[in-house]
Amino acid sequence: MKSFDYYYEDMTIGRKIDIGTYEVSKEEIIHFASQFDPAPFHLDEEIGKASMLGGLSASGWHVCSMAMRMLCDSYLLRAASEGSPGMEECKWMAPVLAGDTLSGHLIVESARLSASRPNLGLVNFRCNLFNQNGKQVMTYTNLGMMRLRQAA
Amino acid sequence: MKSFDYYYEDMTIGRKIDIGTYEVSKEEIIHFASQFDPAPFHLDEEIGKASMLGGLSASGWHVCSMAMRMLCDSYLLRAASEGSPGMEECKWMAPVLAGDTLSGHLIVESARLSASRPNLGLVNFRCNLFNQNGKQVMTYTNLGMMRLRQAA
Repeated sequence: MKSFDYYYEDMTIGRKIDIGTYEVSKEEIIHFASQFDPAPFHLDEEIGKASMLGGLSASGWHVCSMAMRMLCDSYLLRAASEGSPGMEECKWMAPVLAGDTLSGHLIVESARLSASRPNLGLVNFRCNLFNQNGKQVMTYTNLGMMRLRQAA
Repeated sequence: MKSFDYYYEDMTIGRKIDIGTYEVSKEEIIHFASQFDPAPFHLDEEIGKASMLGGLSASGWHVCSMAMRMLCDSYLLRAASEGSPGMEECKWMAPVLAGDTLSGHLIVESARLSASRPNLGLVNFRCNLFNQNGKQVMTYTNLGMMRLRQAA
């Protein structure tokens, strides 16, 4: 059986995991928006600049998806993860603009054993993303299901 | 100035708006997952079938993005929308699988005038998505900022 670097027992409350960086390109913003969120300020640089967002800004769902890629690359693909039933409290705090470099971390906020499934733990994470100026652009909390190391 | 079909005043509490349908393809599931959520069960049909998800399942963020496209096509691009500062209580309730046809609606749960910005209203929506068998696959609530018709 495959062994992982992160099991439920590793997600101690307060633990902080760096999730690396993500370069945000104009082409990717427009491509995502064309497919899923075709608002003019996500598609057209001039309209974006003239809007209260101040530039060509990424869809909020695109920013969530970027964060997911950062999580996958930094730890999740090496974790004994069983996915997630949902998330809470997602705040898009500042525009994510073409040319930004995002960085971020997750913090373990709480953890408990599953009442119904032995060998499974439930871990509540907060994910925080920042731009290259240190300004926070997003936060959300996510419930992750993870298998126990002792069961592996 | 451009006129819209939906302003803040139109979003009466309890109003339900149908958001149409969305065909979920295997190719789109794999394409999205390759870019943003490359977990094996989102990329490989056989691994998906063998997992507790029971098939090639879409990333939760992909499902959120599909819902956004449905919202755009059904009403949001015709609404005096000023975007959204965030969302809450997103639950991925059942897998969204290749070949599914999603349908859904939004319901206005609450609405209030902005305390800080005249001519702006804040509308709390719930979005519900179902598959072709009537099984609910997702719910979330979203705060939308909308301009007032009286100000247009």
